[in-house]
This record gives sequence, structure tokens and C-alpha cells, in this order.
Amino acid sequence: MIDGAMLIGAEARQADKRFTSVDPSTGATLTPDFSSAGPDAVDAACALAAEAFPTFAATDPEARAAFLEGITEEILALGDDLIVRAMQESGLPRARLEGERGRTVGQLKLFAQVVRQGDWLDATIDPAMPDRQPLPRPDLRRMNVALGPVAVFGASNFPLAFSVAGGDTASALAAGCPVVVKGHPAHPGTGELVARAIAKAVEKAGLPAGTFSYLPGETNELGGAIVRDPRIKAVGFTGSRGGGMALMKIAAERDEPIPVYAEMSAINPVVIMPHALEARGAALAPAYVQSLTMGAGQFCTNPGLVLAIAGPALDAFVEAAGAALTDSAPSTMLTPGIHASFEKGVEALAAHSAVTTVARGKVGEGVNQAVGALFRTDADAFLADRALGHEVFGSSSIVVACRDLAEVKKVIASLEGQLTATLQIDAEDEADAKALIPVLADRVGRILVNGWPTGVEVAPAMVHGGPFPATSDGRTTSVGTGAIYRFLRPVSLQNLPASLLPDAVADTNPWGIARRIDGKREASPR
Amino acid sequence: MIDGAMLIGAEARQADKRFTSVDPSTGATLTPDFSSAGPDAVDAACALAAEAFPTFAATDPEARAAFLEGITEEILALGDDLIVRAMQESGLPRARLEGERGRTVGQLKLFAQVVRQGDWLDATIDPAMPDRQPLPRPDLRRMNVALGPVAVFGASNFPLAFSVAGGDTASALAAGCPVVVKGHPAHPGTGELVARAIAKAVEKAGLPAGTFSYLPGETNELGGAIVRDPRIKAVGFTGSRGGGMALMKIAAERDEPIPVYAEMSAINPVVIMPHALEARGAALAPAYVQSLTMGAGQFCTNPGLVLAIAGPALDAFVEAAGAALTDSAPSTMLTPGIHASFEKGVEALAAHSAVTTVARGKVGEGVNQAVGALFRTDADAFLADRALGHEVFGSSSIVVACRDLAEVKKVIASLEGQLTATLQIDAEDEADAKALIPVLADRVGRILVNGWPTGVEVAPAMVHGGPFPATSDGRTTSVGTGAIYRFLRPVSLQNLPASLLPDAVADTNPWGIARRIDGKREASPR
Repeated sequence: MIDGAMLIGAEARQADKRFTSVDPSTGATLTPDFSSAGPDAVDAACALAAEAFPTFAATDPEARAAFLEGITEEILALGDDLIVRAMQESGLPRARLEGERGRTVGQLKLFAQVVRQGDWLDATIDPAMPDRQPLPRPDLRRMNVALGPVAVFGASNFPLAFSVAGGDTASALAAGCPVVVKGHPAHPGTGELVARAIAKAVEKAGLPAGTFSYLPGETNELGGAIVRDPRIKAVGFTGSRGGGMALMKIAAERDEPIPVYAEMSAINPVVIMPHALEARGAALAPAYVQSLTMGAGQFCTNPGLVLAIAGPALDAFVEAAGAALTDSAPSTMLTPGIHASFEKGVEALAAHSAVTTVARGKVGEGVNQAVGALFRTDADAFLADRALGHEVFGSSSIVVACRDLAEVKKVIASLEGQLTATLQIDAEDEADAKALIPVLADRVGRILVNGWPTGVEVAPAMVHGGPFPATSDGRTTSVGTGAIYRFLRPVSLQNLPASLLPDAVADTNPWGIARRIDGKREASPR
Repeated sequence: MIDGAMLIGAEARQADKRFTSVDPSTGATLTPDFSSAGPDAVDAACALAAEAFPTFAATDPEARAAFLEGITEEILALGDDLIVRAMQESGLPRARLEGERGRTVGQLKLFAQVVRQGDWLDATIDPAMPDRQPLPRPDLRRMNVALGPVAVFGASNFPLAFSVAGGDTASALAAGCPVVVKGHPAHPGTGELVARAIAKAVEKAGLPAGTFSYLPGETNELGGAIVRDPRIKAVGFTGSRGGGMALMKIAAERDEPIPVYAEMSAINPVVIMPHALEARGAALAPAYVQSLTMGAGQFCTNPGLVLAIAGPALDAFVEAAGAALTDSAPSTMLTPGIHASFEKGVEALAAHSAVTTVARGKVGEGVNQAVGALFRTDADAFLADRALGHEVFGSSSIVVACRDLAEVKKVIASLEGQLTATLQIDAEDEADAKALIPVLADRVGRILVNGWPTGVEVAPAMVHGGPFPATSDGRTTSVGTGAIYRFLRPVSLQNLPASLLPDAVADTNPWGIARRIDGKREASPR
């Protein structure tokens, strides 16, 4: 059931102010209209979240994990209604959205495992040394605790996996933090369905209603009001650089500044090393164009920049990529606004005096269609105009021809922080590639070899992050099990009697978790 | 040798602008005068640090640990000159400074162990699953890398352990980050001696000169210029709330915002629970007054607030504490400015209509003497005026009489973030105390039972941190082995051939470190 409500904890409430969503493939307005949450709703949701916090944060790992699994059941119980609505609101095809639902459910289940395993508690025990000289050492124990209520801003490009029940929500709930979601206005029906599923799981788990609230809305004021609320203790955001930086500013100017985890923008450089270019430049083109155009290029890790040394091999790569792109079908973009920005970005590149348009994709018939775009320039021009290094969200990419590897390095060093960097190498390139690894590691969150950056595994070793402005906080990841640490902080307990020790650091270790004893970590139990 | 130089890497350079330091016990100006580093020096030091970064960050654990140990040798080689100068500049007694030197050397050695052990790398390997359905899983590995050059602002109250070679410097160097120290103007001679010792260790280790620079100065402009420099990637600071917040603002307004780890202010509440108060209230007084007055009360964790239930037992505690304080000797404060602030804070409390002055310590003969101060008020007054909860840096403390435990909780909930909270309990208090633990854990970085908050163990389980404004970032600690994580960020490596893998995540595990394989952590090897 979708009726345009906000969820203030368990309570579905309608706001007087309304907004509507659009089917981007037709431009038609969808029904129903939706509540545009105002200050009263923000206040109510944050008050409930603060009230829920001590109880929810005190849940034991088993209860919290079972709750996360409960959310997956409720999401799956929505059945095909969820997929159909998400298709209408996003223009994304069924297979993609079914896959994304699998990813959403999978990451909630993974966090349930993480919560049960207990490594996230970082339980640490330094036993007392009563006879130490010159002073005795007290019994000292440390564990992670939840930060407090978290505001989550969903992204438009993953209406399931990076939205209401996406990675930010899953990791914040896993950490023991109540969540207040600011619903993305591009998919409010999808958002409401998922929000109702989470609220149902909260109720079935017997948790306080304020553990989860959902505030749909189309204004910047709504987001600002949530981040300004003193009961909110951290923010998770995926979206534009402008949006993320506005929230960073609001958070820094609060009486109590709070962390903002904003995943913002990247052009994800791909370096084709000389031997790989020579040996298989043209052969690389189809996979590159596929990574560039899948999902209308609407991925944070879309390969927006290719660096290689000028010459016939690069010309062959560009030609093959141009041919593949010319054959590529257009696809519907997520919103008219995103489509307009894409067109504007592509037009600016096409009009740039130092940039050549290599190819455009097929033009479609419908509205809001992304027609892929491939450009070419040289390193001098790229270094001279920083605008050429800005993200054009969608299937647009620019090939930068460099004189030599030194110039490739120079271009890399000139880049802002990125989510990913990719190296295409052959065996003979390995020595040069090895020298590039630390240079790239200083600029990006993930380095790939002989692959393409789209496709972000949800796993312990994943970093979906990177130095500013790829994200607001390069010390973290928003995908993978590491995301839970964003919503935790350590507390030290000195000389507590056994009866006062929390279970995580009790001598009896009732949760059976691995601890660090006297500086040495035990192996994970499971 | 002290000649007032700045150290730009290995080069000792004199600035035209000079400043002097004062012996706080006499008010006399000390010789020589010191360089007041200007923008040129900042630029030169940051340029060298950026140049040194890739080389220093690439050192293997053994080399980096040996360098940290080398620093300890050079500090010890300074011999008694260091202690004598520190005594002159800080007014602190010999035994305290000798102890502090031991702590400084000890924490450098501890970080050497930490570096060798390798847990800080958080090395994580998710092996490839080529046959996984619907998509294969790539080989994915993750490790921590150094953030980049770090600016360190030393504190006045620990001229060795929280200054030039203090915890921030030790943990940043351990992480592989070059350090640019902004020398504290209260102890520039001590600072220069230690800086020269570190520079000597850099040279002996064959590291790039820019691994360490030292910029003494007495202006806020100097600190601002260092934090504004785009090559600086993080800041460690211990000092006043005003100073810390000014640096946070500068860091947030940079083109590339950077993390600031500022340890700022706290009043460190002590709750005397009813049964403990009844059974041994008066007996607690001497240890409380000792914790309050040691080092002239110039500790971040000084017990500035006592909460207990009003009644004869509290009166007896207050009377005994007053008697002990009346007998307490005055001691020299660190600087005339700190002394003046202390006097002003004490006078404001004494003049407050809702506050009673219980006792003052003995008045001394010299200048800049801290005369201890004990005040009393009730919860209504404390809750009505937030100024009563502000830190008075020095040996000043206020006892707040509450009606009942509910009012104690109310006062705790009203407090800003704190470094510590202490509970004095007897066996019969345990049930009530247990209920307070999560309430306190939400407000502070460390909870102590039946001890006193001064004395901060340098250990894996220590948290010297806490929610804002105790620190700028409650997710971290500035004391203990956990401090290294402030200067690291994760990088993920996908599908790298063996020849390109860094040692930390190589299959051969040449450093013999513990890793997390497929989500399960191995036990620490040592």
C-alpha cells in the first residue's frame, strides 16, 4: 500500500504539503501524491529516535541480527509490487531492480552476520597489573558503542540498495543507531513501500517505534532541518557534490558538530598501460563501453576518464570504443533533472575547443534518454582546465592522450580524490604499474587491475570511499562490512566490578566474541 | 643546545621575528629568544613534508619501528638538560617531569611494538570466487595507508608527553605520516631540544628530512597557516576549547576539508553513590583532593564536578574535602595566562549567588600560584546556569548536591561531552550504578569505578577522548595504541597480480602479520 504517508516511528502521518513523482520514461506524473515532511515531522521523528536510542543500542547481537533479517523478510514480502513501482519511478529495467533487491537483502543479511560475529565491538581487555612499578596498572576494558540517531539520505541511482533500506541504513542499524531516513523525491512510492517494511520489522521485533522513521520530501530545507536537529549524531549521504557539501557545512556549524559520511562525485580514472594498449587496446573497447553505458552510466564508479599514451594503439582503442558506443542503445535516466544535467555536461564538453567528440550513442525515441558520449583531448588541455575533470553523471567519458608515463602520472597527481582507479596492464607493464600503485593509493579508495570499476562487491575488503571530494571522509567506506564503523565510537571502562561490566567485555564472554587481550587479538570465532 | 631555531626538516633556521618564554615560578624572562615562524617557514616545512611522505609512508614496519625507538634514544641522550629546561619553563617539579619523560619514551616504544605487530594495517583478504553465481567474486584485498603530512599542536600541561614528541607525534609517525609540529610558546626551549632529538633520529634512520619539522611561534596566525596548508592532511591538537574550535573551523573551510583531532575541555564528573557516600564519604575526601590538586590541577581529566545526594553524609564529605584542601600547598601554574584564567574562573564561582565557597588551599609566596578552590551548589542552580558546568582549568571543583538519584541522572544528561566519568560505589550501589553505565557511556570516553580520573594509562584499552566538546571527534582516542587509527585510511585492491600486491596483503605475508581472511580475523602473531 502506498498512500503518500510519512512514518513517524510506527505512525503513518500525512502532511498537508504534497509533492509528486514522475515516470522518467514517459514524463507522466505518477499517483498518489506524497507528504512533504515539514519541521514538525522532523522534530517528532528525531524525538522518537532519541527515545528509542538507549533501548535499541542495548539490544544484544542476536536480537539485533534477527531484526536485520526481519527487515529482509518484510522487503521480500512486498513481492513484485516493489519491483513494478521502482521500475515506474526510476526507469531502470526489471532485471537490474531484481538484482538490486537481492543486493539490498544480501547486505542486510551480511550485517546480521557481522553483528553476531562481534568483531565490530573491538572488545579490548588490558588486565590489571597490581604489582607494576612505579604504579599499578588498573583493569581497563574498551568496547565500541553506538553514536546515536543517524540521518540517512538515499540516492536516486540505487532506489533500493542505496536508499531507504540501503547500505547506510543497514550499517547504522547494525551499529545500534536508530535511523531517520530523508526519502529521495525521485522514488517516493518505492521509498514508502520499503519504509513500511522496515517499520513492520521494528514492530515484530518488539523494538521501540523510534528505531526507524521515514520523512519523504522534495526540499533542501527538509534535509537541513534533519541534520540540524541536535538529537541526530551522524549523517549518511549518497548524492551530488553540492548536496553533500551543503550537509557538511550544516553539520560543521552545529553547536555540536557531527560526522557526515557523504559519497559525492568521481570520474574514476582508467589507465591503459603501454603494453596492454599495444597488445589489446581495441579488444578492451567493448568492455569499457559496456561499463560506461550500463544503467545509463548512472554509477558512482562509472569510468569517466581514460589515460593512455598517444599513438596508433590509442587511436585504435578510441576508434573501437567509438564504434561500440555508436551502436549502444540509449536508456532512460533516473529523473528529468539528472537528464538535463547530463545533456548540459555533454554539451559543454562537445563545445570545448580542446576536446573532440569521438562518438555518440544511438538516439532514442522517448524522453530523458541518455545518449552515450565519448570525447578525446590531450594532457596539456586537461591540465589547463580543471572543468574537464569534473564528473558528468551519466554515460560520458573522456580519453586523455598523454606524451609518456610521466605525463600520465602528472595527470593522476592533478586529480581530486576518487572512488576508484583502474589499470589495464600486460605482464610487461607490471614494473611500471607497481610504481603507480602508491601514487594511486594516495588519490583513491579502490584500485582495480584488468577490470572495470562499475560493480561494487559488498564484502569485508571493499572500500567504497576515497579522499575528498569523492567522499567527505576518506577514512571510511559506505559499502561492505567496514561501513558499520562509521556509526561507532569507543568507550573505556576502568576498574569496573564484574557485576557492572557490559557483556561485550565481561570475563565470561557470554556472546562468544573475539577480543584483544593485553594487546593481542584473538581469532574471530566464526 | 638551544639557540631559538626553527627546524625545517634537517635545517635549523632563524626567523627575524622573535619571542621569549617565562619562568612561571619567578616571572623572569628566560634566554635565548626564539624564532617566531612565519608563512615562509610554514610553506617550506609543508613542502618538505609532502616530499617526504611517499618515502616515509613506504617504510616497512621494522624500519619505522626502529626509527621510533631511535627517537627515544635521542631524547634520553639529552640527559638532565631536558629536565632542567622543562622545569624552568613549566614550573613543574623534577619528579613529575622525569616521570613524564618516561611516559614519552614509553609511548614511542609502545608504538614501535604496535607498528611491528601490524594489526593497525587491518589487512583483509577476500579470495576470488570465480564460480560464484550470478556473478564471480573478484579477489579483493584491503589495507590501511597513511593519510599524509600531519600538523601537531603540543599542549602546555605536558611539555613532553603531549608536546613535540608526544602522543600525537608518536601515533602520526607510527602511521607513516610526516609531522609538522607547531611548538607551544610556553616551553620553546624544551620543544627545541626534543625537536632536535627527533631530527637527529630522522637523519640516523636515513629518512627524508621532511619527515619531521618544528615551527615554534606565539601567534594564532602560525597555527592557522599550518592547518590551511593544502599539503597538511590531518591535525592533532591538545589545548583549549577556543583554540580547538578555531582550528576545526579553519579545517572545515579548506577547499579540501581535513580531520581535526582536538582534545579540548572537560569537567569530568564524579558521582558518589549513596551507599559509598554513607559508608566512606569522609574517607574519600583525601584522595579526591589529591586528584584535584596534583600538578596544580592542570590535567584534562581533573575532577571538576562531584555529584551526590544531599544530606549529612555529603556534608561530611564536603567538610573533610574542605579540610584537606585547606591544608593543600599551592603550586606554580604553567604560564601567567593560565594562572590569570584560573583566578578569573575561581572568582566568578566565588561571586556566584547560588555557590558557596567551601575552602581554598594555602596561599603561596611566589607568583602564578594555584590556590585550590572547592565550591558547593545544588542541582537546581547547576541546571539553571550552564556556566557552572564550564571547565576552570586548574585545581577548582564544585560539589553539586542533588535531591535523589533521578536528579543526579538529570544533571548527567545535561552535561556536554566529557573525557571521563567516575563512580564511587559500594556493593549495595551496584544495581543503581549498572543503570548509570549506559547513560554515562553516552556522554564520556572513559568510565572509572572507585578511582580518580587523573592518570591516563597508555594502553590498548584506553580511550582518552569523548563526545564533543571534550574532543572534536569522539570516534577516536589521543592516548593509547588506538591513537594510530586517526592517521590512517583504507584502500581496497581488486584483482591485483601477485607482483603488484603490497607486502601487507601479499599471499606470502612477508611481515608475518594477522589478517582478516574471508571475514575472519586471524589471531595477532605477537
